[in-house]
Amino acid sequence: MTQLSDEATKALTVAEALKLAAEQPETLRQRFAVMHESELADLLLDCRDDEQRSQLVPYIDEKRLGDVLLELPEGRQEELLARLNPKAIEEIVEHMDSDDAADLLQAVEKPVADVIIDRLEPEERRDLSQLLAHDEESAGGLMQAELFKVRDDWTVDTVLKVLRRWGREIENLNYIYVVDDDDRLTGVLPLHKLLLSEPDQRMSEIQEADFPRVLAGQDQEEVAKIFDRYDVLALPVVDEQGVLVGRITADDVIDVIHEEATEDMYRLAALSDEDDLSEPVLTTARRRGVWLLVNLGTAILASIVIAQFEQTIARIVALAVLMPIVASMGGIAGTQTLTVIVRGIALGRVTLANARRALVKEVMVGLVSGLLFACIMGFVATIWFPEVGIRLGFVIGAAMMINLFAAGLAGAVIPLTLQRLNIDPALASGTVLTTVTDVVGFLSFLGLASVFLL
Amino acid sequence: MTQLSDEATKALTVAEALKLAAEQPETLRQRFAVMHESELADLLLDCRDDEQRSQLVPYIDEKRLGDVLLELPEGRQEELLARLNPKAIEEIVEHMDSDDAADLLQAVEKPVADVIIDRLEPEERRDLSQLLAHDEESAGGLMQAELFKVRDDWTVDTVLKVLRRWGREIENLNYIYVVDDDDRLTGVLPLHKLLLSEPDQRMSEIQEADFPRVLAGQDQEEVAKIFDRYDVLALPVVDEQGVLVGRITADDVIDVIHEEATEDMYRLAALSDEDDLSEPVLTTARRRGVWLLVNLGTAILASIVIAQFEQTIARIVALAVLMPIVASMGGIAGTQTLTVIVRGIALGRVTLANARRALVKEVMVGLVSGLLFACIMGFVATIWFPEVGIRLGFVIGAAMMINLFAAGLAGAVIPLTLQRLNIDPALASGTVLTTVTDVVGFLSFLGLASVFLL
Repeated sequence: MTQLSDEATKALTVAEALKLAAEQPETLRQRFAVMHESELADLLLDCRDDEQRSQLVPYIDEKRLGDVLLELPEGRQEELLARLNPKAIEEIVEHMDSDDAADLLQAVEKPVADVIIDRLEPEERRDLSQLLAHDEESAGGLMQAELFKVRDDWTVDTVLKVLRRWGREIENLNYIYVVDDDDRLTGVLPLHKLLLSEPDQRMSEIQEADFPRVLAGQDQEEVAKIFDRYDVLALPVVDEQGVLVGRITADDVIDVIHEEATEDMYRLAALSDEDDLSEPVLTTARRRGVWLLVNLGTAILASIVIAQFEQTIARIVALAVLMPIVASMGGIAGTQTLTVIVRGIALGRVTLANARRALVKEVMVGLVSGLLFACIMGFVATIWFPEVGIRLGFVIGAAMMINLFAAGLAGAVIPLTLQRLNIDPALASGTVLTTVTDVVGFLSFLGLASVFLL
Repeated sequence: MTQLSDEATKALTVAEALKLAAEQPETLRQRFAVMHESELADLLLDCRDDEQRSQLVPYIDEKRLGDVLLELPEGRQEELLARLNPKAIEEIVEHMDSDDAADLLQAVEKPVADVIIDRLEPEERRDLSQLLAHDEESAGGLMQAELFKVRDDWTVDTVLKVLRRWGREIENLNYIYVVDDDDRLTGVLPLHKLLLSEPDQRMSEIQEADFPRVLAGQDQEEVAKIFDRYDVLALPVVDEQGVLVGRITADDVIDVIHEEATEDMYRLAALSDEDDLSEPVLTTARRRGVWLLVNLGTAILASIVIAQFEQTIARIVALAVLMPIVASMGGIAGTQTLTVIVRGIALGRVTLANARRALVKEVMVGLVSGLLFACIMGFVATIWFPEVGIRLGFVIGAAMMINLFAAGLAGAVIPLTLQRLNIDPALASGTVLTTVTDVVGFLSFLGLASVFLL
């Protein structure tokens, strides 16, 4: 079973591989030959740096090297490809499907990529140039040119003959794409339905004319939603004129879904999309530093609010002890709302049509929790600082209500507004949100305290 | 094009649907008939409550109602099914694929589900009971029983004949599963390869014997990883003896991937997995309240730390102004590390083998950012509070270093430890992490201040 061979090969560590490379290169080549592309990629990722990685790369079969490289994060792809000469890259590209080849060439410097494309066979060159013309994150950037296409006036018998002749070259041939004289998509036929039809039936009679399709310019996130909605294993891609230009298979979409989820999580956590475990410490520190600097700015903003109440705090130090609680509860409640809304938008559950209802609900939840935690915290504060007494309880309770209300409101309004403005709703939402809950928390608590406790 | 008909039907709002139900029920039935299952589900979700929803349900074709219900969150499924009688549910179940029927019956109360299963045809009953015996989150819970299975000694010609006879009943028939006399899986044959073979070739000669497979007991997250790794559109499921029991298609896995990503995001944000936009305000407030209460506990813990330094704060109020900055920076930096590690574990990028390297890297990043932000914040504090002077700068700088180091360490250690203990690394990680960064932040800053500034 595949799982078992998996386990067996996992034994090869980076240290062992490097040792084999130095002492028994042929053995290493054989070990690599029985490993899966993704296992080879894992091994490369485990290397200390790109220097080590490029020592192992020559022992991977060039027919598979492209697929191995594609499993790596973009930063690593670029580094490793930069160490190969154009001839070597050309040989890698020749063994790949057009969509994968296009993805790989995105990681190569433009002039080098152009040299490589020029050297390819005319047909491959045309396919690749077309694919590279599309935005990497669009249906066009995701699709592959290889597919099985037939004319709508062909009979089942003809199609079977053509399939026997050309079908060998196409992987995952599950759907037959039917086009008219102008190459416009007229319908799709699942392969097994071909087998169930009579030899003299024409494609135009048996095709599924309403099979879903996507436009080459559509965003990959939308493509993923259409896959999810129609439960299909592949989708045809057409241009503005309805001409069939490629197909996207479900396995490509699985990558997109992983990617988009990672992107949202990273953005909510103030991380750059490119942040990666395999990159050097200083690169990561620099990427994250930018966001930490933004957070420092907003944290200082909150501190300026506190500074306005220095006199009040000097007289009632209990306020300094309690104020982080108000801010923290607002931050958590706001993050809960923010996450539900951001995820809801990503999965298509929150739309312009129901956004208002979602907003109202989140504000209501904020009010209910505000009321609850106002009571709890009012009680705790009153017995914790008896020298200030029940008035302190009322002040912190009121501040808690105000801040949890603000948290629900901001947690919903920030991503919905960004979405309206066509900005990714996850981007910087978290930072803006905690700024709001910190400022509102400190301001309401210390402000009310100044009025009622002094 | 499908997209266009999509737009056209979106016009139907809940209010309009309810109006049609009361005045022109037949029109509503027709409108529903041209809408996609997921559009109907969206409409039901937009309803104010389950009462409204159950007013619309009767106008959905019973053949499609099951698939519509499956698009709803579990809470909604349960509520709506509870309002139907067993006979009605039975009719819904009869029109569904076995995997979907099993999922739906999970949402029905056990005694009712048993009644329904007993009434089904013998074969359906057997399939369903088998599927229901598996854990909902395992390969067995995900698979469907419908598949196209042939004997390894059959010829291509025989298989084609059988396929023409029985193939009509199976959707997404892309792979042929080959078994031996004891029903053990011997290999898989992509459908198009059948067409490319000679009529007298036997399955045992042309099957792919090393095609990946999963065990019925394997976790769905692992199944998703295998799909991702092998780029296939369907996987066979076998039991401990290697007997073929079902298959999982890529579209089912897409749901799993969405689900698992949502789960991780929700857990990182202190949300229950069941939190849902469509549930009532009080239910949501209760779910979130539990996590807010946990956070209140940890926030009070941090405040108890502050309370130990009341004397110090009373004498240097600047400390109260600056202390949230130290805590906030630690929280953000720790969340960055936590998110990278949790996501890395989910995607299989962080494993036991490279966990130590990831940990070392994150701690190093913490040290580098600590050094950088110690300098920045030391400078800012010195000029902001000249009356305390450069010693304040050194104290906040040192506290910042300590806290960003602790953030990197805790952000990596917490999820890795949970993973080791076989607990979901995302669960409660965020709450534990901010407790650490708050406590360490306040303790180091106020502690150092007490020693060096008084």
